[in-house]
Amino acid sequence: MKRHVDLELNHVKDELVRMAGLAEAAIGLAVKALVSRDAEAARQVIASDDAINALEMEIDELCLRTMALYQPEAGDLRLLAMALKINNDLERMGDQAVNIAERTLELLKEPLLKPLIDIPRMAEVAQRMVKESLDAFVHQDTMRARAVCKGDDEVDRFDDQIFRELLTYMMEDTKVITRAVNLILVSRHLERIADHATNIAEDVIYLVEGKNVKHHAQDRAAA
Amino acid sequence: MKRHVDLELNHVKDELVRMAGLAEAAIGLAVKALVSRDAEAARQVIASDDAINALEMEIDELCLRTMALYQPEAGDLRLLAMALKINNDLERMGDQAVNIAERTLELLKEPLLKPLIDIPRMAEVAQRMVKESLDAFVHQDTMRARAVCKGDDEVDRFDDQIFRELLTYMMEDTKVITRAVNLILVSRHLERIADHATNIAEDVIYLVEGKNVKHHAQDRAAA
Repeated sequence: MKRHVDLELNHVKDELVRMAGLAEAAIGLAVKALVSRDAEAARQVIASDDAINALEMEIDELCLRTMALYQPEAGDLRLLAMALKINNDLERMGDQAVNIAERTLELLKEPLLKPLIDIPRMAEVAQRMVKESLDAFVHQDTMRARAVCKGDDEVDRFDDQIFRELLTYMMEDTKVITRAVNLILVSRHLERIADHATNIAEDVIYLVEGKNVKHHAQDRAAA
Repeated sequence: MKRHVDLELNHVKDELVRMAGLAEAAIGLAVKALVSRDAEAARQVIASDDAINALEMEIDELCLRTMALYQPEAGDLRLLAMALKINNDLERMGDQAVNIAERTLELLKEPLLKPLIDIPRMAEVAQRMVKESLDAFVHQDTMRARAVCKGDDEVDRFDDQIFRELLTYMMEDTKVITRAVNLILVSRHLERIADHATNIAEDVIYLVEGKNVKHHAQDRAAA
């Protein structure tokens, strides 16, 4: 027989999966807007942020209500506290998608600098990390969580490569500087999204194994 | 007579103030390293991040233990959930200080691009926001929280101004591009720090008044 609190915990998980879906969709649409130079799609991303913010509030309330009503035992309490953190990470991803959409609107004021190849590939990795980190949370799957942490290294390499390539473009032709800087910022926003997914994955590992891997991530971030 | 849970709640607040002190100090030292071209100070910021990460874990545990042991009523539970969020924001500020220190080490490889005027002023505003957001939390002071939200606009204006000025530098002389981009990134990191402080302030307003002002901030961020 299911305990009431289990039903509520499943409800929290479902809502977080929905939230992750919204964040993923916003990231996907923002990158699509960038690649296909679609201002309408960029504006749609910016508009969709309200829904993500509203859902964040809802999930926070749900977690707090469950804590207050069911006075759950330590393990469940820990899960709910983690849900609050994950919720926050997902909302921040939505903000990063908005930032990408804003950069896109800036970029659309000028002709295409170059065909975008690395940024869409980097975005794919970041989006996959978002999805996998949530799967890892829902199934308490530390193997999947560790795969997400590895993705972070891949994204960092993309970010580095994109940064260097765009510097070269700028040095060759000052007319491209504004566009190149905007693309560097897009790359940084994708890198932040991957960071948030990595945070979620590290939280999952901590929840399941009680092992703190954040420090390791910190070393990686500082590399 | 004090309830036991009140003692614990005060302990949580004290620890968060200590955490904010570490974050503030890291930001201050990172900007000092940048302005006075001090590689040793930059490396110190990077090394100090371990202490911030360790304290984050401690405070998380303290909040969770208090929730589990004292089964606090709804209001106190809400305060503890907020403490978890604030703790996370403070840790992220530490990460941003590390990022600034990393950019500084890059910048030290080349001569000074220009005397830095706006960045230290922007950093001062951001640091003040960190301190005030924590004061607002500890004293549940929504007036102070609203002042923090106003600071965010000021920081955004600095970020914008610095961005435009550095673009001009790059267009005039391609030799300065790497340095200018690194300074743009420093400015973005300061802007993120201000965002985290604003998040804390908005959480305080929500905690005290039950009024969600995040949406408003979102509009501001998208402007």
